[in-house]
Amino acid sequence: MRDVAENAQLALLLEVSGTPKPGNVDRHREYDDLRFEQFMAGAVGALPGLRMAAEGGAVGNAFERAVEGMSHQSGGNTQFGALLSVVPLVSAATSGRLTPEGVTAVIEGTTVEDACSFYRAFDHVDVAVDAPPTDLDDLDVRRGSDATEAIRDRGWTLSEIMERSAERDGVAAEWVRGFERSFEAAGWLLSDDGPVYKRASRAFLRLLADERDTFIVTRNGESTATEATTRARAVLEGSEDAEALADEFVERDINPGTTADLTAAALFIALERGLEV
Amino acid sequence: MRDVAENAQLALLLEVSGTPKPGNVDRHREYDDLRFEQFMAGAVGALPGLRMAAEGGAVGNAFERAVEGMSHQSGGNTQFGALLSVVPLVSAATSGRLTPEGVTAVIEGTTVEDACSFYRAFDHVDVAVDAPPTDLDDLDVRRGSDATEAIRDRGWTLSEIMERSAERDGVAAEWVRGFERSFEAAGWLLSDDGPVYKRASRAFLRLLADERDTFIVTRNGESTATEATTRARAVLEGSEDAEALADEFVERDINPGTTADLTAAALFIALERGLEV
Repeated sequence: MRDVAENAQLALLLEVSGTPKPGNVDRHREYDDLRFEQFMAGAVGALPGLRMAAEGGAVGNAFERAVEGMSHQSGGNTQFGALLSVVPLVSAATSGRLTPEGVTAVIEGTTVEDACSFYRAFDHVDVAVDAPPTDLDDLDVRRGSDATEAIRDRGWTLSEIMERSAERDGVAAEWVRGFERSFEAAGWLLSDDGPVYKRASRAFLRLLADERDTFIVTRNGESTATEATTRARAVLEGSEDAEALADEFVERDINPGTTADLTAAALFIALERGLEV
Repeated sequence: MRDVAENAQLALLLEVSGTPKPGNVDRHREYDDLRFEQFMAGAVGALPGLRMAAEGGAVGNAFERAVEGMSHQSGGNTQFGALLSVVPLVSAATSGRLTPEGVTAVIEGTTVEDACSFYRAFDHVDVAVDAPPTDLDDLDVRRGSDATEAIRDRGWTLSEIMERSAERDGVAAEWVRGFERSFEAAGWLLSDDGPVYKRASRAFLRLLADERDTFIVTRNGESTATEATTRARAVLEGSEDAEALADEFVERDINPGTTADLTAAALFIALERGLEV
Protein backbone atom coordinates (compact mmCIF):
# COMPACT_ATOMS: atom_id res chain seq x y z
CA MET A 1 0.00 0.00 0.00
CA ARG A 2 0.94 3.66 -0.02
CA ASP A 3 3.67 4.74 2.38
CA VAL A 4 3.57 7.88 4.54
CA ALA A 5 5.16 10.18 1.96
CA GLU A 6 2.80 8.93 -0.75
CA ASN A 7 -0.21 9.55 1.46
CA ALA A 8 1.04 13.09 2.02
CA GLN A 9 1.38 13.67 -1.72
CA LEU A 10 -2.07 12.19 -2.31
CA ALA A 11 -3.52 14.45 0.41
CA LEU A 12 -2.30 17.49 -1.54
CA LEU A 13 -3.91 16.15 -4.72
CA LEU A 14 -7.19 15.25 -3.02
CA GLU A 15 -7.35 18.64 -1.34
CA VAL A 16 -7.25 20.56 -4.61
CA SER A 17 -9.60 18.02 -6.21
CA GLY A 18 -12.30 18.53 -3.57
CA THR A 19 -15.20 20.59 -4.90
CA PRO A 20 -16.96 22.91 -4.24
CA LYS A 21 -14.58 24.65 -1.85
CA PRO A 22 -15.80 28.25 -2.12
CA GLY A 23 -12.98 30.57 -3.16
CA ASN A 24 -10.33 27.89 -3.59
CA VAL A 25 -8.87 26.43 -6.72
CA ASP A 26 -10.63 23.10 -7.15
CA ARG A 27 -11.60 20.65 -9.89
CA HIS A 28 -14.13 23.10 -11.28
CA ARG A 29 -12.67 26.51 -10.59
CA GLU A 30 -9.38 28.31 -10.86
CA TYR A 31 -7.82 31.73 -11.22
CA ASP A 32 -6.10 32.85 -14.43
CA ASP A 33 -2.79 33.10 -12.60
CA LEU A 34 -3.32 30.15 -10.22
CA ARG A 35 -4.50 27.04 -11.98
CA PHE A 36 -5.48 23.52 -11.01
CA GLU A 37 -2.65 22.04 -13.06
CA GLN A 38 -0.11 24.09 -11.12
CA PHE A 39 -1.27 22.38 -7.93
CA MET A 40 -0.68 19.03 -9.67
CA ALA A 41 2.88 20.10 -10.50
CA GLY A 42 3.30 21.42 -6.95
CA ALA A 43 2.32 18.05 -5.49
CA VAL A 44 4.71 16.23 -7.83
CA GLY A 45 7.59 18.51 -6.86
CA ALA A 46 6.85 18.37 -3.13
CA LEU A 47 7.36 14.62 -2.81
CA PRO A 48 11.14 14.54 -2.20
CA GLY A 49 10.69 16.91 0.76
CA LEU A 50 7.78 14.90 2.10
CA ARG A 51 9.96 11.81 1.80
CA MET A 52 12.71 13.48 3.82
CA ALA A 53 10.21 14.00 6.64
CA ALA A 54 8.94 10.43 6.27
CA GLU A 55 12.50 9.16 6.64
CA GLY A 56 13.01 11.00 9.90
CA GLY A 57 14.69 14.13 8.53
CA ALA A 58 14.51 17.46 10.34
CA VAL A 59 11.13 19.18 9.97
CA GLY A 60 12.64 22.46 8.77
CA ASN A 61 14.88 20.85 6.17
CA ALA A 62 12.11 18.64 4.86
CA PHE A 63 9.73 21.58 4.67
CA GLU A 64 12.21 23.76 2.81
CA ARG A 65 12.92 20.94 0.33
CA ALA A 66 9.19 20.36 -0.20
CA VAL A 67 8.58 24.05 -0.86
CA GLU A 68 11.54 24.24 -3.22
CA GLY A 69 10.17 21.29 -5.22
CA MET A 70 6.65 22.71 -5.14
CA SER A 71 7.88 25.98 -6.58
CA HIS A 72 8.78 24.48 -9.97
CA GLN A 73 5.61 25.63 -11.69
CA SER A 74 4.47 29.00 -12.92
CA GLY A 75 1.63 29.60 -10.44
CA GLY A 76 3.77 30.71 -7.51
CA ASN A 77 2.56 29.70 -4.07
CA THR A 78 0.32 26.69 -4.50
CA GLN A 79 0.89 24.64 -1.35
CA PHE A 80 3.19 26.50 1.08
CA GLY A 81 0.67 26.41 3.91
CA ALA A 82 -0.49 22.90 3.12
CA LEU A 83 3.11 21.68 3.35
CA LEU A 84 3.66 23.58 6.60
CA SER A 85 0.64 21.70 7.92
CA VAL A 86 1.44 18.28 6.53
CA VAL A 87 5.20 18.04 7.16
CA PRO A 88 5.08 17.84 11.01
CA LEU A 89 2.22 15.34 10.69
CA VAL A 90 4.36 13.22 8.37
CA SER A 91 7.13 13.29 10.98
CA ALA A 92 4.67 12.26 13.68
CA ALA A 93 3.27 9.44 11.50
CA THR A 94 6.78 8.16 10.84
CA SER A 95 7.47 7.94 14.56
CA GLY A 96 4.22 5.99 14.95
CA ARG A 97 2.48 8.79 16.85
CA LEU A 98 0.03 10.48 14.51
CA THR A 99 -1.89 12.04 17.41
CA PRO A 100 -2.14 15.57 18.85
CA GLU A 101 0.42 14.54 21.48
CA GLY A 102 2.70 12.94 18.90
CA VAL A 103 2.78 15.96 16.60
CA THR A 104 3.24 18.26 19.61
CA ALA A 105 6.32 16.23 20.55
CA VAL A 106 7.65 16.71 17.00
CA ILE A 107 6.98 20.44 17.19
CA GLU A 108 8.53 20.85 20.63
CA GLY A 109 11.60 19.07 19.27
CA THR A 110 12.20 21.68 16.56
CA THR A 111 15.40 23.70 16.74
CA VAL A 112 16.87 27.04 15.73
CA GLU A 113 18.12 25.33 12.58
CA ASP A 114 14.54 24.30 11.74
CA ALA A 115 13.56 27.94 12.13
CA CYS A 116 16.33 28.99 9.73
CA SER A 117 15.17 26.40 7.18
CA PHE A 118 11.63 27.70 7.53
CA TYR A 119 12.83 31.19 6.68
CA ARG A 120 14.88 29.92 3.76
CA ALA A 121 11.69 28.36 2.34
CA PHE A 122 10.40 31.90 1.72
CA ASP A 123 13.24 32.38 -0.78
CA HIS A 124 11.55 29.94 -3.16
CA VAL A 125 8.11 31.48 -3.45
CA ASP A 126 6.15 34.64 -2.69
CA VAL A 127 3.77 34.06 0.21
CA ALA A 128 1.06 36.52 1.21
CA VAL A 129 1.82 37.47 4.81
CA ASP A 130 1.40 40.53 7.00
CA ALA A 131 4.34 42.62 8.13
CA PRO A 132 5.41 41.71 11.68
CA PRO A 133 5.37 44.24 14.57
CA THR A 134 8.12 46.88 14.16
CA ASP A 135 10.28 45.44 16.95
CA LEU A 136 10.39 42.16 15.04
CA ASP A 137 11.18 43.71 11.69
CA ASP A 138 14.48 41.80 11.42
CA LEU A 139 12.40 38.59 11.64
CA ASP A 140 10.01 39.43 8.80
CA VAL A 141 9.58 36.13 6.97
CA ARG A 142 9.70 38.01 3.71
CA ARG A 143 13.41 38.49 4.38
CA GLY A 144 13.80 34.77 3.78
CA SER A 145 17.33 33.51 4.34
CA ASP A 146 18.49 37.07 5.11
CA ALA A 147 16.76 36.72 8.48
CA THR A 148 18.62 33.62 9.60
CA GLU A 149 21.29 35.60 11.42
CA ALA A 150 18.63 37.43 13.43
CA ILE A 151 17.00 34.11 14.31
CA ARG A 152 20.27 32.64 15.50
CA ASP A 153 20.94 35.79 17.56
CA ARG A 154 17.63 35.36 19.34
CA GLY A 155 17.92 31.60 19.54
CA TRP A 156 14.32 31.00 18.56
CA THR A 157 13.21 27.53 17.52
CA LEU A 158 10.65 26.91 14.79
CA SER A 159 8.15 26.07 17.51
CA GLU A 160 8.75 29.48 19.12
CA ILE A 161 8.37 31.24 15.75
CA MET A 162 5.00 29.53 15.31
CA GLU A 163 3.88 30.51 18.82
CA ARG A 164 4.53 34.12 17.93
CA SER A 165 2.44 33.82 14.73
CA ALA A 166 -0.39 31.75 16.14
CA GLU A 167 -2.70 34.67 16.72
CA ARG A 168 -2.69 35.84 13.14
CA ASP A 169 -2.00 32.63 11.21
CA GLY A 170 -4.29 29.61 11.26
CA VAL A 171 -1.56 27.12 10.36
CA ALA A 172 0.73 28.41 13.12
CA ALA A 173 -2.25 28.11 15.48
CA GLU A 174 -2.52 24.43 14.56
CA TRP A 175 1.16 23.96 15.40
CA VAL A 176 0.49 25.42 18.84
CA ARG A 177 -2.74 23.52 19.46
CA GLY A 178 -1.53 20.05 18.39
CA PHE A 179 -3.42 20.26 15.08
CA GLU A 180 -6.68 19.80 16.96
CA ARG A 181 -8.83 21.20 14.14
CA SER A 182 -7.10 19.00 11.56
CA PHE A 183 -7.57 15.88 13.67
CA GLU A 184 -11.22 16.76 14.21
CA ALA A 185 -11.75 17.30 10.48
CA ALA A 186 -10.03 13.95 9.77
CA GLY A 187 -12.76 12.37 11.90
CA TRP A 188 -15.40 14.07 9.77
CA LEU A 189 -13.78 12.76 6.59
CA LEU A 190 -13.68 9.20 7.94
CA SER A 191 -17.25 9.15 9.25
CA ASP A 192 -18.66 10.79 6.10
CA ASP A 193 -19.54 8.71 3.06
CA GLY A 194 -19.34 8.97 -0.74
CA PRO A 195 -16.49 10.07 -2.98
CA VAL A 196 -13.55 11.79 -1.31
CA TYR A 197 -13.96 14.97 -3.34
CA LYS A 198 -17.36 15.54 -1.73
CA ARG A 199 -16.14 14.64 1.75
CA ALA A 200 -13.27 17.11 1.31
CA SER A 201 -15.74 19.80 0.28
CA ARG A 202 -17.92 19.22 3.33
CA ALA A 203 -14.97 19.14 5.73
CA PHE A 204 -13.65 22.36 4.20
CA LEU A 205 -17.02 24.09 4.66
CA ARG A 206 -17.27 22.97 8.30
CA LEU A 207 -13.76 24.23 9.03
CA LEU A 208 -14.53 27.56 7.34
CA ALA A 209 -17.83 27.87 9.23
CA ASP A 210 -16.08 27.19 12.54
CA GLU A 211 -13.31 29.77 12.41
CA ARG A 212 -12.29 32.79 10.34
CA ASP A 213 -9.71 32.09 7.66
CA THR A 214 -6.50 33.99 8.42
CA PHE A 215 -5.41 34.01 4.77
CA ILE A 216 -8.59 35.96 3.96
CA VAL A 217 -7.90 38.29 6.89
CA THR A 218 -4.44 39.00 5.45
CA ARG A 219 -5.54 39.46 1.84
CA ASN A 220 -9.07 40.81 2.09
CA GLY A 221 -9.46 42.08 5.66
CA GLU A 222 -11.35 41.11 8.79
CA SER A 223 -14.87 41.84 7.64
CA THR A 224 -14.50 39.70 4.52
CA ALA A 225 -13.15 36.87 6.65
CA THR A 226 -16.17 37.18 8.92
CA GLU A 227 -18.45 37.17 5.89
CA ALA A 228 -16.81 33.98 4.56
CA THR A 229 -17.40 32.22 7.86
CA THR A 230 -21.01 33.41 8.08
CA ARG A 231 -21.76 32.30 4.55
CA ALA A 232 -20.09 28.90 4.99
CA ARG A 233 -22.44 28.45 7.95
CA ALA A 234 -25.36 29.40 5.72
CA VAL A 235 -24.31 26.68 3.26
CA LEU A 236 -24.23 24.11 6.05
CA GLU A 237 -27.65 25.27 7.23
CA GLY A 238 -29.02 25.00 3.69
CA SER A 239 -29.78 28.66 3.10
CA GLU A 240 -26.93 29.21 0.62
CA ASP A 241 -25.83 27.14 -2.36
CA ALA A 242 -22.21 25.99 -2.18
CA GLU A 243 -21.66 26.07 -5.95
CA ALA A 244 -22.99 29.61 -6.29
CA LEU A 245 -20.91 30.74 -3.33
CA ALA A 246 -17.84 29.14 -4.92
CA ASP A 247 -18.43 31.06 -8.15
CA GLU A 248 -18.93 34.32 -6.25
CA PHE A 249 -15.84 33.95 -4.06
CA VAL A 250 -13.60 33.18 -7.03
CA GLU A 251 -15.08 36.20 -8.80
CA ARG A 252 -14.31 38.38 -5.75
CA ASP A 253 -10.87 36.76 -5.22
CA ILE A 254 -11.76 35.60 -1.69
CA ASN A 255 -9.56 32.54 -1.23
CA PRO A 256 -9.79 30.70 2.14
CA GLY A 257 -6.29 29.31 1.72
CA THR A 258 -5.66 28.51 5.37
CA THR A 259 -8.82 26.44 5.53
CA ALA A 260 -7.58 24.55 2.46
CA ASP A 261 -4.26 23.94 4.26
CA LEU A 262 -6.08 22.40 7.21
CA THR A 263 -8.19 20.32 4.82
CA ALA A 264 -4.98 18.91 3.32
CA ALA A 265 -3.74 18.09 6.84
CA ALA A 266 -7.05 16.40 7.65
CA LEU A 267 -6.92 14.38 4.42
CA PHE A 268 -3.41 13.18 5.26
CA ILE A 269 -4.50 12.06 8.74
CA ALA A 270 -7.60 10.37 7.30
CA LEU A 271 -5.55 8.52 4.65
CA GLU A 272 -3.16 7.30 7.32
CA ARG A 273 -6.17 6.08 9.30
CA GLY A 274 -7.63 4.14 6.41
CA LEU A 275 -9.68 6.52 4.25
CA GLU A 276 -10.24 4.56 1.04
CA VAL A 277 -9.76 6.21 -2.35
CA MET B 1 13.51 21.24 -11.99
CA ARG B 2 11.48 18.06 -12.33
CA ASP B 3 13.38 14.90 -13.23
CA VAL B 4 12.25 12.34 -15.80
CA ALA B 5 10.21 10.23 -13.36
CA GLU B 6 8.48 13.33 -12.00
CA ASN B 7 7.56 14.48 -15.49
CA ALA B 8 6.06 11.05 -16.14
CA GLN B 9 3.97 11.27 -12.97
CA LEU B 10 2.90 14.79 -13.86
CA ALA B 11 1.93 13.63 -17.37
CA LEU B 12 -0.50 11.12 -15.82
CA LEU B 13 -2.01 13.88 -13.66
CA LEU B 14 -2.26 16.38 -16.51
CA GLU B 15 -3.86 13.76 -18.77
CA VAL B 16 -6.74 13.12 -16.41
CA SER B 17 -7.03 16.85 -15.67
CA GLY B 18 -7.50 17.75 -19.34
CA THR B 19 -11.10 18.66 -20.14
CA PRO B 20 -13.29 18.10 -22.08
CA LYS B 21 -12.05 14.72 -23.29
CA PRO B 22 -15.29 13.13 -24.48
CA GLY B 23 -15.95 9.83 -22.72
CA ASN B 24 -12.92 9.95 -20.45
CA VAL B 25 -12.70 10.66 -16.77
CA ASP B 26 -11.55 14.27 -16.53
CA ARG B 27 -11.72 17.23 -14.17
CA HIS B 28 -15.43 17.62 -14.81
CA ARG B 29 -16.68 14.10 -15.43
CA GLU B 30 -16.32 10.66 -13.97
CA TYR B 31 -18.05 7.30 -13.67
CA ASP B 32 -19.50 6.07 -10.36
CA ASP B 33 -17.02 3.21 -10.30
CA LEU B 34 -14.09 5.06 -11.90
CA ARG B 35 -13.44 8.41 -10.32
CA PHE B 36 -11.06 11.29 -10.84
CA GLU B 37 -9.57 10.84 -7.38
CA GLN B 38 -8.67 7.23 -8.19
CA PHE B 39 -6.51 8.50 -11.06
CA MET B 40 -4.77 10.79 -8.55
CA ALA B 41 -4.06 7.78 -6.32
CA GLY B 42 -2.96 5.78 -9.37
CA ALA B 43 -0.44 8.45 -10.33
CA VAL B 44 0.90 8.59 -6.76
CA GLY B 45 1.33 4.81 -6.65
CA ALA B 46 2.90 4.57 -10.11
CA LEU B 47 5.91 6.74 -9.29
CA PRO B 48 8.26 4.04 -7.88
CA GLY B 49 7.88 2.05 -11.11
CA LEU B 50 8.41 5.14 -13.23
CA ARG B 51 11.52 5.85 -11.18
CA MET B 52 12.84 2.34 -11.88
CA ALA B 53 12.56 3.07 -15.61
CA ALA B 54 14.17 6.49 -15.13
CA GLU B 55 17.09 4.84 -13.36
CA GLY B 56 17.73 2.48 -16.26
CA GLY B 57 15.78 -0.53 -14.98
CA ALA B 58 14.28 -3.11 -17.32
CA VAL B 59 11.15 -1.89 -19.09
CA GLY B 60 9.08 -4.92 -18.07
CA ASN B 61 10.07 -4.76 -14.40
CA ALA B 62 9.48 -1.03 -14.22
CA PHE B 63 6.11 -1.38 -15.91
CA GLU B 64 4.98 -4.16 -13.59
CA ARG B 65 6.05 -2.16 -10.53
CA ALA B 66 4.24 0.93 -11.83
CA VAL B 67 1.04 -1.05 -12.41
CA GLU B 68 1.27 -2.68 -9.00
CA GLY B 69 1.60 0.74 -7.34
CA MET B 70 -1.18 2.17 -9.49
CA SER B 71 -3.52 -0.60 -8.41
CA HIS B 72 -3.70 0.58 -4.79
CA GLN B 73 -7.01 2.35 -5.20
CA SER B 74 -10.55 1.09 -5.49
CA GLY B 75 -11.22 2.07 -9.12
CA GLY B 76 -9.39 -0.83 -10.75
CA ASN B 77 -7.62 -0.07 -14.01
CA THR B 78 -6.94 3.64 -14.10
CA GLN B 79 -3.66 3.95 -15.98
CA PHE B 80 -2.50 0.54 -17.28
CA GLY B 81 -2.36 1.69 -20.89
CA ALA B 82 -0.94 5.09 -20.00
CA LEU B 83 1.91 3.40 -18.14
CA LEU B 84 2.51 0.99 -21.00
CA SER B 85 2.88 4.06 -23.20
CA VAL B 86 4.96 6.19 -20.85
CA VAL B 87 7.42 3.62 -19.46
CA PRO B 88 9.41 2.97 -22.69
CA LEU B 89 9.47 6.74 -23.30
CA VAL B 90 10.90 7.25 -19.80
CA SER B 91 13.62 4.70 -20.60
CA ALA B 92 14.37 6.51 -23.87
CA ALA B 93 14.49 9.90 -22.11
CA THR B 94 16.89 8.52 -19.52
CA SER B 95 19.26 7.35 -22.22
CA GLY B 96 19.09 10.84 -23.73
CA ARG B 97 17.20 9.69 -26.82
CA LEU B 98 13.57 10.75 -26.48
CA THR B 99 12.94 10.33 -30.21
CA PRO B 100 11.09 7.74 -32.32
CA GLU B 101 14.46 6.10 -33.02
CA GLY B 102 15.47 6.20 -29.36
CA VAL B 103 12.28 4.60 -28.09
CA THR B 104 12.46 2.02 -30.88
CA ALA B 105 15.94 1.08 -29.68
CA VAL B 106 14.54 0.65 -26.15
CA ILE B 107 11.70 -1.52 -27.48
CA GLU B 108 13.96 -3.64 -29.67
CA GLY B 109 16.12 -4.22 -26.61
CA THR B 110 13.30 -5.82 -24.63
CA THR B 111 13.68 -9.47 -23.63
CA VAL B 112 11.64 -12.55 -22.80
CA GLU B 113 11.90 -11.51 -19.15
CA ASP B 114 10.31 -8.15 -20.02
CA ALA B 115 7.48 -10.09 -21.66
CA CYS B 116 7.01 -12.18 -18.50
CA SER B 117 6.91 -9.01 -16.35
CA PHE B 118 4.32 -7.55 -18.71
CA TYR B 119 2.12 -10.59 -18.20
CA ARG B 120 2.61 -10.45 -14.44
CA ALA B 121 1.30 -6.88 -14.50
CA PHE B 122 -2.12 -8.29 -15.42
CA ASP B 123 -2.22 -10.01 -12.01
CA HIS B 124 -2.60 -6.62 -10.32
CA VAL B 125 -5.62 -5.26 -12.14
CA ASP B 126 -8.46 -6.27 -14.48
CA VAL B 127 -7.85 -4.87 -17.96
CA ALA B 128 -10.48 -4.90 -20.70
CA VAL B 129 -8.93 -6.92 -23.55
CA ASP B 130 -10.18 -9.23 -26.26
CA ALA B 131 -9.50 -12.96 -26.22
CA PRO B 132 -6.54 -13.86 -28.47
CA PRO B 133 -6.84 -16.22 -31.47
CA THR B 134 -7.42 -19.84 -30.33
CA ASP B 135 -3.90 -20.98 -31.25
CA LEU B 136 -2.54 -18.37 -28.86
CA ASP B 137 -4.88 -19.21 -26.02
CA ASP B 138 -1.96 -20.11 -23.72
CA LEU B 139 -0.74 -16.52 -24.21
CA ASP B 140 -4.00 -14.83 -23.23
CA VAL B 141 -2.85 -11.83 -21.18
CA ARG B 142 -5.72 -12.46 -18.82
CA ARG B 143 -3.78 -15.51 -17.60
CA GLY B 144 -1.30 -13.06 -16.08
CA SER B 145 1.72 -14.76 -14.49
CA ASP B 146 0.26 -18.18 -15.38
CA ALA B 147 1.27 -17.51 -18.97
CA THR B 148 4.96 -16.90 -18.29
CA GLU B 149 5.91 -20.53 -18.92
CA ALA B 150 4.26 -20.42 -22.34
CA ILE B 151 6.12 -17.19 -23.14
CA ARG B 152 9.46 -18.71 -22.16
CA ASP B 153 8.66 -21.80 -24.26
CA ARG B 154 8.10 -19.64 -27.30
CA GLY B 155 10.95 -17.29 -26.48
CA TRP B 156 8.98 -14.16 -27.33
CA THR B 157 10.28 -10.78 -26.23
CA LEU B 158 7.99 -7.96 -25.10
CA SER B 159 8.61 -6.27 -28.44
CA GLU B 160 7.37 -9.40 -30.25
CA ILE B 161 4.29 -9.60 -28.02
CA MET B 162 3.47 -6.02 -28.96
CA GLU B 163 3.95 -6.68 -32.66
CA ARG B 164 1.36 -9.43 -32.41
CA SER B 165 -1.12 -7.07 -30.70
CA ALA B 166 -0.48 -4.00 -32.84
CA GLU B 167 -3.42 -4.56 -35.13
CA ARG B 168 -6.02 -4.58 -32.39
CA ASP B 169 -4.40 -2.40 -29.71
CA GLY B 170 -3.51 1.25 -30.23
CA VAL B 171 -0.80 1.29 -27.56
CA ALA B 172 0.90 -1.80 -29.00
CA ALA B 173 0.71 -0.07 -32.41
CA GLU B 174 2.64 2.86 -30.93
CA TRP B 175 5.33 0.47 -29.70
CA VAL B 176 5.69 -0.85 -33.24
CA ARG B 177 5.61 2.55 -34.91
CA GLY B 178 8.10 4.34 -32.65
CA PHE B 179 5.31 6.24 -30.87
CA GLU B 180 4.85 8.37 -33.96
CA ARG B 181 1.35 9.53 -33.01
CA SER B 182 2.49 10.43 -29.49
CA PHE B 183 5.45 12.44 -30.80
CA GLU B 184 3.18 14.20 -33.25
CA ALA B 185 0.68 15.06 -30.53
CA ALA B 186 3.52 16.34 -28.33
CA GLY B 187 4.25 18.81 -31.11
CA TRP B 188 0.63 19.96 -31.05
CA LEU B 189 0.80 20.46 -27.28
CA LEU B 190 3.97 22.54 -27.55
CA SER B 191 2.78 24.74 -30.41
CA ASP B 192 -0.66 25.29 -28.86
CA ASP B 193 -1.22 28.02 -26.27
CA GLY B 194 -3.19 28.55 -23.07
CA PRO B 195 -3.57 26.33 -20.01
CA VAL B 196 -2.36 22.75 -20.33
CA TYR B 197 -5.79 21.31 -19.55
CA LYS B 198 -7.17 22.90 -22.72
CA ARG B 199 -4.17 21.89 -24.82
CA ALA B 200 -4.58 18.31 -23.59
CA SER B 201 -8.24 18.38 -24.54
CA ARG B 202 -7.46 19.60 -28.06
CA ALA B 203 -4.66 17.07 -28.58
CA PHE B 204 -6.95 14.29 -27.38
CA LEU B 205 -9.67 15.33 -29.84
CA ARG B 206 -7.23 15.44 -32.74
CA LEU B 207 -5.90 11.98 -31.89
CA LEU B 208 -9.42 10.61 -31.61
CA ALA B 209 -10.44 12.24 -34.91
CA ASP B 210 -7.40 10.75 -36.66
CA GLU B 211 -7.79 7.10 -35.73
CA ARG B 212 -10.36 4.78 -34.17
CA ASP B 213 -9.86 4.09 -30.48
CA THR B 214 -9.12 0.40 -29.94
CA PHE B 215 -10.38 0.46 -26.35
CA ILE B 216 -13.80 1.49 -27.70
CA VAL B 217 -13.57 -1.26 -30.34
CA THR B 218 -12.97 -3.81 -27.55
CA ARG B 219 -15.66 -2.55 -25.20
CA ASN B 220 -18.32 -1.09 -27.47
CA GLY B 221 -17.64 -2.53 -30.92
CA GLU B 222 -16.39 -1.25 -34.27
CA SER B 223 -19.32 0.93 -35.24
CA THR B 224 -19.20 2.85 -31.96
CA ALA B 225 -15.46 3.38 -32.43
CA THR B 226 -16.14 4.74 -35.91
CA GLU B 227 -18.85 7.01 -34.51
CA ALA B 228 -16.44 8.38 -31.87
CA THR B 229 -13.90 9.26 -34.53
CA THR B 230 -16.50 10.86 -36.79
CA ARG B 231 -17.90 12.95 -33.96
CA ALA B 232 -14.46 14.03 -32.73
CA ARG B 233 -13.89 15.29 -36.28
CA ALA B 234 -17.19 17.17 -36.08
CA VAL B 235 -16.01 18.86 -32.88
CA LEU B 236 -12.80 19.96 -34.61
CA GLU B 237 -14.82 21.27 -37.56
CA GLY B 238 -17.10 23.18 -35.23
CA SER B 239 -20.33 21.32 -35.93
CA GLU B 240 -20.45 19.52 -32.55
CA ASP B 241 -19.93 20.87 -29.04
CA ALA B 242 -17.14 19.13 -27.14
CA GLU B 243 -18.79 19.55 -23.72
CA ALA B 244 -22.10 18.10 -24.91
CA LEU B 245 -20.30 15.21 -26.59
CA ALA B 246 -18.38 14.56 -23.37
CA ASP B 247 -21.63 14.37 -21.39
CA GLU B 248 -23.19 12.05 -23.96
CA PHE B 249 -20.22 9.67 -24.18
CA VAL B 250 -19.99 9.33 -20.40
CA GLU B 251 -23.74 8.67 -20.32
CA ARG B 252 -23.32 5.94 -22.98
CA ASP B 253 -20.12 4.57 -21.36
CA ILE B 254 -18.03 5.19 -24.48
CA ASN B 255 -14.53 5.67 -23.09
CA PRO B 256 -11.71 6.36 -25.59
CA GLY B 257 -9.12 4.98 -23.18
CA THR B 258 -6.41 4.29 -25.74
CA THR B 259 -6.56 7.86 -27.00
CA ALA B 260 -6.13 8.99 -23.39
CA ASP B 261 -3.07 6.72 -23.08
CA LEU B 262 -1.50 8.38 -26.11
CA THR B 263 -2.36 11.80 -24.70
CA ALA B 264 -0.45 10.90 -21.53
CA ALA B 265 2.52 9.81 -23.66
CA ALA B 266 2.35 13.08 -25.63
CA LEU B 267 2.19 15.11 -22.40
CA PHE B 268 5.29 13.33 -21.08
CA ILE B 269 7.22 14.07 -24.27
CA ALA B 270 6.04 17.69 -24.24
CA LEU B 271 7.06 18.15 -20.58
CA GLU B 272 10.50 16.74 -21.35
CA ARG B 273 10.73 19.21 -24.25
CA GLY B 274 9.86 22.20 -22.10
CA LEU B 275 6.06 22.47 -21.86
CA GLU B 276 5.51 24.93 -19.02
CA VAL B 277 2.94 24.22 -16.30
